[in-house]
Amino acid sequence: MTILLAITGWDLAPWEAEARAALTNRTIAVHGRDAYDPAAIEYALLWKQPHGALAGLPNLKAALCLGAGVDHVLADPLLPAVPIARTVDPDLTMRMTEWVVLQVLSHHRRQRLYLDQQARRVWASPPQEAASAVRVGLLGLGELGRDAAEVLARLGFRVAGWARTARTVAGVEVFHGVEGLAPFLARTDILVTLLPLTAETRGILNYRLFSGLARDGVLGPPILVNAGRGGLQIEADILAALDDGTLGAATLDVFETEPLPAASPLWGHPKVTITPHVAADSGPREIMALVVRQIARLERGLPPEHLVDPKRGY
Amino acid sequence: MTILLAITGWDLAPWEAEARAALTNRTIAVHGRDAYDPAAIEYALLWKQPHGALAGLPNLKAALCLGAGVDHVLADPLLPAVPIARTVDPDLTMRMTEWVVLQVLSHHRRQRLYLDQQARRVWASPPQEAASAVRVGLLGLGELGRDAAEVLARLGFRVAGWARTARTVAGVEVFHGVEGLAPFLARTDILVTLLPLTAETRGILNYRLFSGLARDGVLGPPILVNAGRGGLQIEADILAALDDGTLGAATLDVFETEPLPAASPLWGHPKVTITPHVAADSGPREIMALVVRQIARLERGLPPEHLVDPKRGY
Repeated sequence: MTILLAITGWDLAPWEAEARAALTNRTIAVHGRDAYDPAAIEYALLWKQPHGALAGLPNLKAALCLGAGVDHVLADPLLPAVPIARTVDPDLTMRMTEWVVLQVLSHHRRQRLYLDQQARRVWASPPQEAASAVRVGLLGLGELGRDAAEVLARLGFRVAGWARTARTVAGVEVFHGVEGLAPFLARTDILVTLLPLTAETRGILNYRLFSGLARDGVLGPPILVNAGRGGLQIEADILAALDDGTLGAATLDVFETEPLPAASPLWGHPKVTITPHVAADSGPREIMALVVRQIARLERGLPPEHLVDPKRGY
Repeated sequence: MTILLAITGWDLAPWEAEARAALTNRTIAVHGRDAYDPAAIEYALLWKQPHGALAGLPNLKAALCLGAGVDHVLADPLLPAVPIARTVDPDLTMRMTEWVVLQVLSHHRRQRLYLDQQARRVWASPPQEAASAVRVGLLGLGELGRDAAEVLARLGFRVAGWARTARTVAGVEVFHGVEGLAPFLARTDILVTLLPLTAETRGILNYRLFSGLARDGVLGPPILVNAGRGGLQIEADILAALDDGTLGAATLDVFETEPLPAASPLWGHPKVTITPHVAADSGPREIMALVVRQIARLERGLPPEHLVDPKRGY
């Protein structure tokens, strides 16, 4: 009746504390620190687990990833064949929508220009276009993309989305599949990426893709907003596209290497806005409440919610 | 059949051009520049008109203010007793909602902290509270306040509003009247001001009011966001409240004197964000379409939409 925590890249303490508080009738063991009987482990709670952390656990029933992205979980070559679930937190969806809406509005309303003018004590106002003249495109129309799309449409933006497979989202023009990508990009002024990281999507945000975005937008050259995964983007291509005018600006929450190395030219680039992977930061308390619910489902013999398909990659 | 333009503080050229384009069967005269027969003027289009500009026009039928705020129109001691209407532009409402949502999210998601960290190449994330833990209060629940409230509630904020008289707004806790102000302030972490400027509201944003805001907010000391009128605020009190911790931050689009003088200490204050009266900047083309509609109503003998009550002040 033991639950294993295998977490790297996050501060362990709050996760351990909330796990102990939420799962009072279970023993909590921390991989790499505590001694435990491998046969006692029934569930594993993961974030970027060390490869092999789940090997040799004969009674493991399921692995629960503590975030929405599972690329790092699936990258483990010693992953056992147990159900793997990701965490889809309504609170996390709301936080992602806040962040996406904030970043799209910041570009639309030229917030950084005004901050720059403030620093120089300049009072000046360039023409302000209506939201209805700005075409936002959501690359990825899962739970997160659909929620952000709804609020952006309410604000008056012209919203479209691209998904791997066909679907319908109220108020959103949906493109899908390989053949839908080029027309989707060609009508997009602000590209918001919320894709999972898979073998198909790795490096998708590259110079060729940026070249396919709309060239006739009212805000100037197209704008990239990435809150998906750093592995989606080729940072050298982002810099090249910003410098030759293929992109007008970029707001990035995720990076090829995190934390973003101090030497990265992204930090100081005047057209780049950086947030430190906080777009949809959810708290250990909220996540642990969802873990309790998942374990209760599994104990009743039900499959976990948000089951991952390892072949598809999410 | 002449229409008088009496505009100061704005660049005249686009307004004149759009008036000529929209009102092709009328003569357009510009106050202070063109010679015109006072008896020929039937309508006046105004923005901060020079006092007396509407005196001695025996056939004036109505005065149409080109913006939502009419305090400057009513301040003219030589204003004739004709109907005065203000402009309520759906496009303007949407722009104000964009600006309010952007500024509230910027505080909630600590956008300026992250920009500051980016400048220092620092990767760090303080705890992020849920929107449901943040209480936004809209001081003023007219057309603009209600629309902003709806989007803020959709984003998960706890939204309340204060109005002069009782009203109902879906999803918003409404306080009203003199006796409703103190409890409204006491539950407010982010105060968004969208009041008109009247004899009653002049200087309402003062130290005493700031002292009545919530002291137990998850974002720290309360935050002021003013997109109403500069005359609502006492800037010396804002600075004093920021410096002694009564306010945690302020975002201001309007000022006692506009353009904000270069010597104002607001420009360089680290807790102040300034935009140059652009929150609900609407374009001359959109406004002139509404002017055409108003004149058509008046010509049919109907009262104008959004008629101003000079006693009430808006």
